[in-house]
Amino acid sequence: MSSGILESIRVPADSRVKLLDRNAGQTFGLTREDVAAALPDLRTELADLQELLYAAGTHSVLVVLQGMDTSGKDGTIRNVMEPVNPIGVTVTPFKVPTKKELAHDFLWRVHRETPPLGMLGIFNRSHYEDVLIVRVHGLAPPAVWRKRYRHIVEFERVLTDSNTILLKFFLHISKAEQEERLLDREADVNKAWKLAVGDWKEREHWRDYIRAYEDALSETSTSHAPWHVIPADRKWLRDHVVSRAIIETLRPYRKGWTVKLEKIGESAKLELDAFRKGVR
Amino acid sequence: MSSGILESIRVPADSRVKLLDRNAGQTFGLTREDVAAALPDLRTELADLQELLYAAGTHSVLVVLQGMDTSGKDGTIRNVMEPVNPIGVTVTPFKVPTKKELAHDFLWRVHRETPPLGMLGIFNRSHYEDVLIVRVHGLAPPAVWRKRYRHIVEFERVLTDSNTILLKFFLHISKAEQEERLLDREADVNKAWKLAVGDWKEREHWRDYIRAYEDALSETSTSHAPWHVIPADRKWLRDHVVSRAIIETLRPYRKGWTVKLEKIGESAKLELDAFRKGVR
Repeated sequence: MSSGILESIRVPADSRVKLLDRNAGQTFGLTREDVAAALPDLRTELADLQELLYAAGTHSVLVVLQGMDTSGKDGTIRNVMEPVNPIGVTVTPFKVPTKKELAHDFLWRVHRETPPLGMLGIFNRSHYEDVLIVRVHGLAPPAVWRKRYRHIVEFERVLTDSNTILLKFFLHISKAEQEERLLDREADVNKAWKLAVGDWKEREHWRDYIRAYEDALSETSTSHAPWHVIPADRKWLRDHVVSRAIIETLRPYRKGWTVKLEKIGESAKLELDAFRKGVR
Repeated sequence: MSSGILESIRVPADSRVKLLDRNAGQTFGLTREDVAAALPDLRTELADLQELLYAAGTHSVLVVLQGMDTSGKDGTIRNVMEPVNPIGVTVTPFKVPTKKELAHDFLWRVHRETPPLGMLGIFNRSHYEDVLIVRVHGLAPPAVWRKRYRHIVEFERVLTDSNTILLKFFLHISKAEQEERLLDREADVNKAWKLAVGDWKEREHWRDYIRAYEDALSETSTSHAPWHVIPADRKWLRDHVVSRAIIETLRPYRKGWTVKLEKIGESAKLELDAFRKGVR
């Protein structure tokens, strides 16, 4: 992926994103074969970078995944993270908040789950639900959810100022593609468990969700925590783009992590030497 | 306490506080006897307000206590909170961070402990240590701790935008009073356990702490979360002023909490009636 692709999927800070102008079926001129051919190298590089991240322990990575029902959040996590050592990864799904969680500010349950240094954390849905479903279904008045854009921007600033590398992906599918996927789930007994009663009902709010997403992405895409709109109608393209976006974002850290590792190695070696000589 | 006192101890937003200009032995013309005479009514009112807070469940209260060693944080909590039902109160001391806590941003361990709706939470030391001891002892470079003022202001905005009533008290003692208290602890076997090895050593940094406190209070006293400088050389005056500051801050909520309680009562009664009639 040329950096041109990464740039074109990023939502620039202080801009308005229009989702209808972004083609969910976009392929950037890549074919399924191109993507399959690139896969082995991608897998190796991601596994390498994650091992360095874990061993150096100077940064953490947080991947925030959002998208409409059936946009493929689970599939993306499974496919993209396959090569990665699970000891260094946590996946946190955010579902309907519990009574205890609702007795706190909306960031409380999210902040608890942010990844510590060395770890790669993935949020399957996130604090963004509090300006999406909450808004679409009127679960809080506008005066409440509108303030949350600022809360989110500043919360994410705390994370990135504390050595968290933050990547936010919106899996963008078309309304037509969603219909196909829902019909698919109905038809296939092996997929039917994924079909929730509310899925067709939620679909009636499609436009409201698009508007809520456009506002959320526009208000909270910052230089410290940019949003990426992933064309997600084609699963193979979606996984490829997400993988590369993560890899390209982490690549500049490789050198620093390697140096750090060498230092850790040296001091461990010195300690071991001293121990062997009985100096300790 | 006339509102004049509350106003005079508050640090106005966007102002510089100078601690040396604030008399730690100040009594506002009150005598020990005045304060003793006012105590029973104060205790009753605080207990009442806390019960309403708990029962209504629409707000939470967070009291942040900071101050030099021996400034009386423990004593203030014990004395001021005595009339209050412990079921509705949590006291959280923040000591040296653990390795796990240090692997997260500095607000992580603090956010976890914020009080849920209905509760009164007290922080004995707090996130402010990360711009105080951390600065004085160079545990983080200026580029790191300077950013934290903004982090703190915005974090506290999330809390107050989410129905947390936030009160911040700096227990202000003079250097001479601290010396007396340290000598006291040395001399009294019953108090010696409170004397840490580092206490006299920390005292050598008095000026640096004053400067760090002045910056912290000035940078983070906001209209949503103001700081109060409590004259704390006299323990009886200190407790009195803290009690009244809490009471006067909560008093305006009494009416709303009472109305809420009546509504809860009515709907409980209706439910009970329906249940009795077998309608349910």
